[in-house]
Amino acid sequence: MNFASDNWAGAHPQIAEALVTNAGGFAPAYGTSELDKRVEKMFSDIFEREVAVFFVGTGTAANSLSLTWASKPGGVAFCHSEAHAIDDEGGAPEYLTGGARLKGVAGRLGRMDPNALDAAIREHPAQFVHAGQPMAASITQATEIGTLYSLEQIEEIAGICREAGIPLHLDGARFANALVSLDTTPAEMTWKRGVEIASFGGTKNGCWCAEAIIVFDPAKIGQMHFLRKRAAQLFSKSRFIAAQFEAYFRDDLWLKNARHANAMAAELATAISNADGARLAWQPQANEVFALMKDEKAQALQAAGAQFYPWKPPLSFAGEMTAGDTLYRFVTSFATEAADIQKCAEALKA
Amino acid sequence: MNFASDNWAGAHPQIAEALVTNAGGFAPAYGTSELDKRVEKMFSDIFEREVAVFFVGTGTAANSLSLTWASKPGGVAFCHSEAHAIDDEGGAPEYLTGGARLKGVAGRLGRMDPNALDAAIREHPAQFVHAGQPMAASITQATEIGTLYSLEQIEEIAGICREAGIPLHLDGARFANALVSLDTTPAEMTWKRGVEIASFGGTKNGCWCAEAIIVFDPAKIGQMHFLRKRAAQLFSKSRFIAAQFEAYFRDDLWLKNARHANAMAAELATAISNADGARLAWQPQANEVFALMKDEKAQALQAAGAQFYPWKPPLSFAGEMTAGDTLYRFVTSFATEAADIQKCAEALKA
Amino acid sequence: MNFASDNWAGAHPQIAEALVTNAGGFAPAYGTSELDKRVEKMFSDIFEREVAVFFVGTGTAANSLSLTWASKPGGVAFCHSEAHAIDDEGGAPEYLTGGARLKGVAGRLGRMDPNALDAAIREHPAQFVHAGQPMAASITQATEIGTLYSLEQIEEIAGICREAGIPLHLDGARFANALVSLDTTPAEMTWKRGVEIASFGGTKNGCWCAEAIIVFDPAKIGQMHFLRKRAAQLFSKSRFIAAQFEAYFRDDLWLKNARHANAMAAELATAISNADGARLAWQPQANEVFALMKDEKAQALQAAGAQFYPWKPPLSFAGEMTAGDTLYRFVTSFATEAADIQKCAEALKA
Amino acid sequence: MNFASDNWAGAHPQIAEALVTNAGGFAPAYGTSELDKRVEKMFSDIFEREVAVFFVGTGTAANSLSLTWASKPGGVAFCHSEAHAIDDEGGAPEYLTGGARLKGVAGRLGRMDPNALDAAIREHPAQFVHAGQPMAASITQATEIGTLYSLEQIEEIAGICREAGIPLHLDGARFANALVSLDTTPAEMTWKRGVEIASFGGTKNGCWCAEAIIVFDPAKIGQMHFLRKRAAQLFSKSRFIAAQFEAYFRDDLWLKNARHANAMAAELATAISNADGARLAWQPQANEVFALMKDEKAQALQAAGAQFYPWKPPLSFAGEMTAGDTLYRFVTSFATEAADIQKCAEALKA
Repeated sequence: MNFASDNWAGAHPQIAEALVTNAGGFAPAYGTSELDKRVEKMFSDIFEREVAVFFVGTGTAANSLSLTWASKPGGVAFCHSEAHAIDDEGGAPEYLTGGARLKGVAGRLGRMDPNALDAAIREHPAQFVHAGQPMAASITQATEIGTLYSLEQIEEIAGICREAGIPLHLDGARFANALVSLDTTPAEMTWKRGVEIASFGGTKNGCWCAEAIIVFDPAKIGQMHFLRKRAAQLFSKSRFIAAQFEAYFRDDLWLKNARHANAMAAELATAISNADGARLAWQPQANEVFALMKDEKAQALQAAGAQFYPWKPPLSFAGEMTAGDTLYRFVTSFATEAADIQKCAEALKA
Repeated sequence: MNFASDNWAGAHPQIAEALVTNAGGFAPAYGTSELDKRVEKMFSDIFEREVAVFFVGTGTAANSLSLTWASKPGGVAFCHSEAHAIDDEGGAPEYLTGGARLKGVAGRLGRMDPNALDAAIREHPAQFVHAGQPMAASITQATEIGTLYSLEQIEEIAGICREAGIPLHLDGARFANALVSLDTTPAEMTWKRGVEIASFGGTKNGCWCAEAIIVFDPAKIGQMHFLRKRAAQLFSKSRFIAAQFEAYFRDDLWLKNARHANAMAAELATAISNADGARLAWQPQANEVFALMKDEKAQALQAAGAQFYPWKPPLSFAGEMTAGDTLYRFVTSFATEAADIQKCAEALKA
Repeated sequence: MNFASDNWAGAHPQIAEALVTNAGGFAPAYGTSELDKRVEKMFSDIFEREVAVFFVGTGTAANSLSLTWASKPGGVAFCHSEAHAIDDEGGAPEYLTGGARLKGVAGRLGRMDPNALDAAIREHPAQFVHAGQPMAASITQATEIGTLYSLEQIEEIAGICREAGIPLHLDGARFANALVSLDTTPAEMTWKRGVEIASFGGTKNGCWCAEAIIVFDPAKIGQMHFLRKRAAQLFSKSRFIAAQFEAYFRDDLWLKNARHANAMAAELATAISNADGARLAWQPQANEVFALMKDEKAQALQAAGAQFYPWKPPLSFAGEMTAGDTLYRFVTSFATEAADIQKCAEALKA
Repeated sequence: MNFASDNWAGAHPQIAEALVTNAGGFAPAYGTSELDKRVEKMFSDIFEREVAVFFVGTGTAANSLSLTWASKPGGVAFCHSEAHAIDDEGGAPEYLTGGARLKGVAGRLGRMDPNALDAAIREHPAQFVHAGQPMAASITQATEIGTLYSLEQIEEIAGICREAGIPLHLDGARFANALVSLDTTPAEMTWKRGVEIASFGGTKNGCWCAEAIIVFDPAKIGQMHFLRKRAAQLFSKSRFIAAQFEAYFRDDLWLKNARHANAMAAELATAISNADGARLAWQPQANEVFALMKDEKAQALQAAGAQFYPWKPPLSFAGEMTAGDTLYRFVTSFATEAADIQKCAEALKA
């Protein structure tokens, strides 16, 4: 019953096998192999347009280099106050951009409020050097707390960005989980709604180490090739990332993994809803479930073998907390087994 | 007959299998798993002392973060004029250090000349802010052109560094190839001779993606944990690097791979020495062979199926070139087959 | 009737004259002249202890280099949400620190709330690399909105910093105005209360261009000499800054200028309090006066010849605004004439 | 007899007086005053075209921000191996550009050799991310060692830059000295010959602190306003720089100062040529004279009251040194008096 995080899982067997399959033979290094090219082409197919793809090693690298791509001197990037880039990346975005600022924008349940975004941008009037200048906005889909932006919400935020002359970045560390939950297409969830650049994560959904930056308009890659190399993110045996993505996309493994993780989360959510002494903090939309429990309840569940951790309540939710309740996060993944959900449900009932 | 580069090879079967073996189960992320700890311990065993180990994704990251660890404002790092950090890392060391300078130091056949190093350091008198300040020296072992520093030469350079109050870094992208060629121990080739920090490469010698920074005195790690995270080099499923290293060290696979690569290089060198119209540029000491050939000879060899590339002649060697000769590099690896060397030898004779 | 800003004034005649007086003769460059040394000594006298002094060209440089001095990888500096460093320095602190984050801390009327500071620091547990690490706190004295920290408040904040193991920086762009208002000594307002480093501003109080970084414990200057040079803030004819400070301190000119500016502000505050259609937003404690007026009132005052600008209401004050009122800022300086205050008072009555 | 450096002089009386004259009154801050605008217009007149002008505080800032303006990821800027930016700016160009590399290009007597420049650029083939990419070239006029590029030489270098697609920067810390020596116009020495951006120095030629970045095509200023602010180089009372430049240009004071300094250098050169035991190292073309002397001769001259220092022999000159000779530098300025040259000439004869 491991619900600690989706990065506690290892790799899906088909991903691991792909690394064996591709281990032999010689191939050009630094992303120029046939396999690299072939997998880049797969991304274009998936997104229904020619896109530029840059493999990198970590989600933090994907986010930070996406922002570096958008960077301006005195630049300010807008993201949700509790975004991963702000809370969990150890200052990498600020460092790799050479000092850009991440400005937290408020919003209910992990989603930036469009009005708040608009107001935040307006605090930086054009050509007023003292206040710095807007350079990008970034949304996380699925959000840090397992909620989603609807396509309309993405479009609305993209419209604000367009008006402000800044690109919209999508942090897709859990891209697949969001995609299958919205039952939409990769194109619809991104460039058709105004996203210009995305971090496309494979690691949390069954890969060992496979992340990509997608620039939706290849004419706009700018200096990305040099940015990636300069940040030590151009892998010599880049095809080990390509091989993972090839297996990830083959026979829709990525969608299956995500559907499984989401389904496990939904079942777990039901179990929590039905339990005494526990309740859902909000409705999960992807593979993260947040529950409110008294500490004793949580300890009992842990004693029964479930692994999960408390979570800092989102600012927008703090008002809804009841004294004595603690917020806990449960994360499911491709590796979560139905039997474990069942076992957890029983432990919750106890 | 692929002699393009040791990073054109894929992964050794035992490395690839290790990724399958470790794919299942849940484990703490970000380098805190049992496997991570166990492999870190293996490094301490190999180096015959407790060392601090930081897994990273690329050799460029290992070098750049080692220099960042040693960084000072206005800092100058000394390395051979044709070091990888200068010629092939796309500015990553300068970028990740926040603007340190790499100062090229001359030296015969890839090795920094100790006197030249000493003179270069002296151009930066203590407390003279205008000239910047020495912050580190870095040697590459094996060098970029397949030669080696002897243990005494490492010691001599370390002595100069010690006197100047700067740490000595060793870029060990081909650590194993150097080690088995010198027939020495990891301890002897590093900290016992005065090296304080090393980039320890597994990728070129049979891994997919396994690099580590070794700080030989754990009391001196300073801010390395934060430096790695900030540079987007802390991998969530870090154990996929640990798993590779575990297989790499098991049953001395790393040493076997390196011995094989070196032996292949030695046979190739003999074949070149014996060929008409080709000669060794200098004696290879690891897994790179540099040959002088007329272009027609090289083309004939390529037509026979051998893959290799011309190489910019080292400054210290340019005077020994004969008109009409071009310098070519041949690299062998764990994946080079004896049959290919044999085939190449025959093609050279033709 | 110019109340636009204290940096709209030129230089006090004695400051300007000092530049004439010192224009002749030759003297060592880059801060090593007798005059430089003599003025550095004056700072030690003023602060009643040996201090290390670094002249720089702008307040932004003084603040940014103070934070760079305190910098750590993934570093987070805490300052009031509406601090100059956040709102008005064009990203210089983030840039010159190589990517540190400025974290805004709430607090009434320009002063960081100690509890909020403490809570903000606690969001960065030691050794938790993902969240970055606390590196410094910075208070502004006088604050951006003309209020002051009492000595006790400084001490309280310093205590929190000490416990967190981070230095406390004081942005003293209006150091003198705060000092005379508190009727205390430079030592009491800084190191005796726990401040470790300060930006000491002369520009707003009668100099052309004279700012200094003061490190109160000279044993802790660390790399500051190199940091200043590397940031292009070591002036060749540094003695032109020293000369200004010499005149600034002679016969307590700095205190006289500050007292005059504060007195002018107090008179202006009285005039606003007595006027119909205008009221003080809060009690001024230095040389800035904030008034609430209807726009027509403000326009009438401007039509009468007064120059001043609207100001974004502090978050902590927004709740006290009445519909229809706009917040305006009036700044006085050494150059403000009593006659202008009188004239303004009359215009306010009209 | 002070020949230590032109930055050991103070300010010309007319410059110092200008600061008195402009000290009164109120004016908009941060470079927006009438005086700022008027002086910017003077630059356009002087350069015979509309130019964009950015006042900064130091020559190091002017050079570093010019390179930052031209910066690219993995960027390499080419300048003479003994350029000020390499030898004397404490790493500021690398730091402020976020990690660009300064690549030293050889050349006789302080001037980059065009062929060597061309060869150095070619080491960075387009789109080859490993080697970084050319971003700018920078020439110093007058050079660090008092020689000049002819207009044709500037043009030739500019042509190489144009072909490589990189801008040419001119470090004009001694712009006026070069200008009057070549007896040409500012336009001819810069944009008419292909220079795109220049550091225009006033400090060494009679100002206290007056430096400017000139972008010759105002359509190409790019992000320079933000770059300057972010680097803490936007001065609140910017008009104190403008005031210096206004006096500098009035009645051709700048040209008179430079002619005087150069004439003093020429007379000193004659005296050295005529002296026993001393000889010119090379013919001075601006306000720096380099002499070869035995140490005893130098000491005798110093004992007679002359102040000057030894200088590291340029690489291109080292071969012409005779054993026992030391190279010394003498710098003249607006403040050098003819009587001192006369006195020095006599001491040299002794």
